[in-house]
Amino acid sequence: MAANKKLVEAITSMEEDFAQWYTDVVKKAELIDYSSVKGCMIIKPAGYAIWENIQKELDRRFKESGVENVYMPMFIPESLLQKEKDHVEGFAPEVAWVTHGGMEPLQERMCVRPTSETLFCDFYANEIESYRDLPKLYNQWCSVVRWEKTTRPFLRSREFLWQEGHTAHATAEEAQERTEQMLNLYADFCEEVLAMPVIRGRKTDKEKFAGAEATYTIEALMHDGKALQSGTSHNFGDGFAKAFEIQYTNKENQLEYVHQTSWGMSTRLIGGIIMVHGDDSGLLLPPAIAPVQTMIIPIQQAKPGVLEKAGELQKELSEFRVKVDDSEKSPGWKFSEQEMRGIPTRIEIGPKDLEKGQCVIVRRDTREKLITPLEQVKEKLAEVLETIQKEMLERAREHREKHTYIARDYEEFKKIVEEKPGFVKAMWCGSQDCEDQIKEETGATSRCMPFAQEQIGETCVCCGKPAKTMVYWGKAY
Amino acid sequence: MAANKKLVEAITSMEEDFAQWYTDVVKKAELIDYSSVKGCMIIKPAGYAIWENIQKELDRRFKESGVENVYMPMFIPESLLQKEKDHVEGFAPEVAWVTHGGMEPLQERMCVRPTSETLFCDFYANEIESYRDLPKLYNQWCSVVRWEKTTRPFLRSREFLWQEGHTAHATAEEAQERTEQMLNLYADFCEEVLAMPVIRGRKTDKEKFAGAEATYTIEALMHDGKALQSGTSHNFGDGFAKAFEIQYTNKENQLEYVHQTSWGMSTRLIGGIIMVHGDDSGLLLPPAIAPVQTMIIPIQQAKPGVLEKAGELQKELSEFRVKVDDSEKSPGWKFSEQEMRGIPTRIEIGPKDLEKGQCVIVRRDTREKLITPLEQVKEKLAEVLETIQKEMLERAREHREKHTYIARDYEEFKKIVEEKPGFVKAMWCGSQDCEDQIKEETGATSRCMPFAQEQIGETCVCCGKPAKTMVYWGKAY
Repeated sequence: MAANKKLVEAITSMEEDFAQWYTDVVKKAELIDYSSVKGCMIIKPAGYAIWENIQKELDRRFKESGVENVYMPMFIPESLLQKEKDHVEGFAPEVAWVTHGGMEPLQERMCVRPTSETLFCDFYANEIESYRDLPKLYNQWCSVVRWEKTTRPFLRSREFLWQEGHTAHATAEEAQERTEQMLNLYADFCEEVLAMPVIRGRKTDKEKFAGAEATYTIEALMHDGKALQSGTSHNFGDGFAKAFEIQYTNKENQLEYVHQTSWGMSTRLIGGIIMVHGDDSGLLLPPAIAPVQTMIIPIQQAKPGVLEKAGELQKELSEFRVKVDDSEKSPGWKFSEQEMRGIPTRIEIGPKDLEKGQCVIVRRDTREKLITPLEQVKEKLAEVLETIQKEMLERAREHREKHTYIARDYEEFKKIVEEKPGFVKAMWCGSQDCEDQIKEETGATSRCMPFAQEQIGETCVCCGKPAKTMVYWGKAY
Repeated sequence: MAANKKLVEAITSMEEDFAQWYTDVVKKAELIDYSSVKGCMIIKPAGYAIWENIQKELDRRFKESGVENVYMPMFIPESLLQKEKDHVEGFAPEVAWVTHGGMEPLQERMCVRPTSETLFCDFYANEIESYRDLPKLYNQWCSVVRWEKTTRPFLRSREFLWQEGHTAHATAEEAQERTEQMLNLYADFCEEVLAMPVIRGRKTDKEKFAGAEATYTIEALMHDGKALQSGTSHNFGDGFAKAFEIQYTNKENQLEYVHQTSWGMSTRLIGGIIMVHGDDSGLLLPPAIAPVQTMIIPIQQAKPGVLEKAGELQKELSEFRVKVDDSEKSPGWKFSEQEMRGIPTRIEIGPKDLEKGQCVIVRRDTREKLITPLEQVKEKLAEVLETIQKEMLERAREHREKHTYIARDYEEFKKIVEEKPGFVKAMWCGSQDCEDQIKEETGATSRCMPFAQEQIGETCVCCGKPAKTMVYWGKAY
């Protein structure tokens, strides 16, 4: 019976088996379900509502920065995908191919977009003629398909939802500025809204996007010490422009190539929220993104006046996202459900509270109970939600600091990666051989070359030659 | 040069060539562009912004009626598509087939969803167990693919954006109620927001959705007298439930099949807006859906104070969707552009207006100029926008009434269809033979059996046998 499945069953503890804990949470907080389509997931109402809030807030920030939304076809003809050499090499092995339309074989097969650079370039080649047409600042919200072999809900699935921004500029400087602007927009969003601290930096050439001149990334640290690449922003220079002949006439009436960028964030962020904030009671959502910010749970709801007061409270708190759980389950059960679903606060109200003219606000993160006079509940709830949001970010930052290590030589590096899950900061000579060796021998990859560089040594942690840059290393999702 | 392309070129007149007028408007109002993917369109910022407003308003209404959003995979395994016989027969001839993932052929080919009944059914079969799980009221916003042979922007394209609602209920009555509720929600939305009057009714069996027990529709009349099916709502009874074994245990602990509905509206609505409201100057958007409700156009903008005042006006009018066109084009040019893009009002302000402390509000629909004291501009603009919205609906209703005819015998019917584009109301016996004959001989199809029945005769307009129902007939997009 479904009613039984909905019981709050114990979930695996994080310490015991983090991967199983994650799977338990996504299922039991009812974020996703598996589908008959291998590697694709069904995003259920509780999961999709988080994505809607992410969209709303990101979209507002995009539009404030001058970006407009468009929609491109979901198919890419094979010849179009092949126009930029690095790009096709990077993506061709993992696309889904459409070969038939109705009963007829297609003259040219098409892939379902894994990303839409080629479509935007094809469009821009027609659309852009003069410097007056620049910049183009377009974004689309859509789903993309990458034929992954192993998949995990939100983190890696064959189809996922995302936004992809694609811009075209007159100069290299402007393209670089937009690339960094969007990375910083992503980072601010993660910190301010998702309470998820991130390291901002540049990817090494080995890790950059297929076809990009430079890729910038934000990297977050999960509870288990693994890194999650949470958003990327690419500067293409004029590489795609040359492959697709996207030229404009400048003020002196000369033809020039445009400079382009692209940047994206996806439903992967939901995986990040789960793994940064969740605990052994389930999900924990930052108030700024939580579809329900407080659940009012009546105690002894059959007693006169209790349900009425719960309803009144809901109305009074209508500036927040509030629900009342007036189902016939026991209060204890409702508490567990609210905690499992990560609703950041609950308000308990029963006959004794009515007598005293109070209610009890309970924080999901600390379990702290705040007895609150009814006439102050609005101000108090606002304050509590703000505090939770702030402290969730602080706790995540502390966790990251505590799990960020410095390695000065290779022995130390290997020992840290083996024994202490987290970020390792170490100097690097810039050679891909060292990156390859580190990955092979330790499983750690270069996460990014942070904007905030520190001089922690003079020599490469791997080969001992003179170092060029400090890199964050780590095992990653 | 793009700057030249952007000039407001004359568009074909509606009377001369309606199809060409339509194509000119979608291109010159910059709603869409054609893509390298045959039959698929690129929705440009001005077009996508209309869709965003449609989404926002529809989504709000859905949620008020208890509907929750989810996201299903975009692929359907062939075996799943085949589970309901009528459904697969209806859709298999027009789907796109994915046969390869990466370098490997798939074990089972999958189609890109043309609609998602089969996916929702597969999901519901796992999700629903008890009467406590019902009703399920889910919706998704996504794109779907139907491999059409001939395509037209917004009206018929191989990929289009839509929403599809899918519900499951304990009883047949509840399913019927939801089917009609959503049809009425669609109709109210069209009339209140898009200023597009619609006929509400039921499709004949010949015209119903593949797999449905009954299909309900809203039908709008375009400026050229052709009908546009603008939204549909289907009652599936327990047909899909039996094919997919979606059962629940009722309160008496007995197994029963659920009853289901589905309902959808798409970017086709934008085609409807164009063809109901547009004129020979271009697009005309109802204020409730217009991404820009008023364009402030400074006159002699180099003169002191003009641009400043335009900026002040924009701030003062921030409760509306307002832009200032301070580009270097001439005012006349800007007027034409604003009219072409269908922005429902403009506000002209120049040095003489400044002297007099006034501005001029110009209605896009009637060209009426309203000299308005600056201190009253906010109230006046609100009033004008409301009036435009109301009168657009009235004009469209009058146009439809004027182009709705009654045919009492077949000769009259054929003459009307041939000579007078519009709806024809006529009695029908209920036999598909008559429908087929009418379609073959006149090109008109049954649009719907309206809820508001009128007794305009006793016998079928085609065969002369006793009539069962009055039908709206017409040529359709």
